[in-house]
Amino acid sequence: MKMKEEWMELALNLAEATIGQTSPNPSVGAVVVKDGQLLGVGTHLKAGEPHAEVHAIAQAGQKAKGADIYVTLEPCAHYGKTPPCAELLVKSEVKKVYIACLDPNPKVAGKGVKILTEAGIEVEVGIGEQRALKINQSFFHYQNTRRPFITLKAATTLDGKTATVTGDSKWITSEKAREDVHEERHKHDAILVGGRNTVEQDNPSLTTRLPPGWKKSNSDYTRY
Amino acid sequence: MKMKEEWMELALNLAEATIGQTSPNPSVGAVVVKDGQLLGVGTHLKAGEPHAEVHAIAQAGQKAKGADIYVTLEPCAHYGKTPPCAELLVKSEVKKVYIACLDPNPKVAGKGVKILTEAGIEVEVGIGEQRALKINQSFFHYQNTRRPFITLKAATTLDGKTATVTGDSKWITSEKAREDVHEERHKHDAILVGGRNTVEQDNPSLTTRLPPGWKKSNSDYTRY
Repeated sequence: MKMKEEWMELALNLAEATIGQTSPNPSVGAVVVKDGQLLGVGTHLKAGEPHAEVHAIAQAGQKAKGADIYVTLEPCAHYGKTPPCAELLVKSEVKKVYIACLDPNPKVAGKGVKILTEAGIEVEVGIGEQRALKINQSFFHYQNTRRPFITLKAATTLDGKTATVTGDSKWITSEKAREDVHEERHKHDAILVGGRNTVEQDNPSLTTRLPPGWKKSNSDYTRY
Repeated sequence: MKMKEEWMELALNLAEATIGQTSPNPSVGAVVVKDGQLLGVGTHLKAGEPHAEVHAIAQAGQKAKGADIYVTLEPCAHYGKTPPCAELLVKSEVKKVYIACLDPNPKVAGKGVKILTEAGIEVEVGIGEQRALKINQSFFHYQNTRRPFITLKAATTLDGKTATVTGDSKWITSEKAREDVHEERHKHDAILVGGRNTVEQDNPSLTTRLPPGWKKSNSDYTRY
């Protein structure tokens, strides 16, 4: 079991590295393995571009036949901007598909698996599931509820105030907290602020200003 | 600094996943990043196939211009089965190259960096260096000494014996140790055994027999 978990971990690392850049699509990673050898890796980089499975299978080429593929999310079963990945896997004649988590959207869940199993491909779901669900927490929330995933950012003192009467207490949070703000902005599609007390008083630029080499840390949306 | 280390960690994860399958080449991973967005990933899968940088730059496409690339080993500077990766990075107009470790071979070390810096590309060496050196420990040993990296596997009891007088103590090691043997076989290019006491007595098949989904663990060559 430990071995399969390590391959899935690599796929999850690839998925996690794209948090904040794939919207409205989820972050997904994939690796193709046969006889203990890595044959291909892939991650979905941007909506409209190839899915993780497409990159990984392309690298594996003919060797994908009889191989295992580890994907962090159930392969898609619908024709969108690209053909369904489940059909690509059938065509590639992979032997087994390890899926970290099914698509939680009840309208989609299981359809990718069905295409695979009906083609005689083994499917195992659940390795790395908790981490996979967390990576796409906001995507899944929207799929399930049709409501946006909202993160509230509030800077207050212990007594519930946001600024002194004079208004000169510009930064009551720490440098680390301000870094987090930019990290959260990177992950979110939109930012909502108050009119009178924020726009008129502070006029924040609301851009994502990241230090060089910056990378979003673990997908912890609930740290505030 | 922490952020750059995370991107390099992803590249190192990609490199480590190919230990044992790239000989005589080293295991190398690469990721291309711009404005906190992952633009491409790559790992060298097999000798004769594209280097890590080639995969990563191909995925990034035109966006590689002005981007940073994280590579776990100094980009090659020589024409082998593929053109030099250092020149590919110059042609792609990347802005900065983060290198985990230089090629320890004195005849090669620094040549890739020289091509980059002379083209005006920033270079930073050393992030993740210890892990990078370990991943290619056997490759570097050979490059530096022109002697093979040898792992001695000896199963003995506390009193220094390998079998009882009757010869029926077939396995004095544990199941975990036997798993390790197959893992080590996967990492090594050749296996040397004794003639009379091993081949004649035991006639081992010397194949690498791996459980399904097996993946080599961390590159710890010195655990015995």
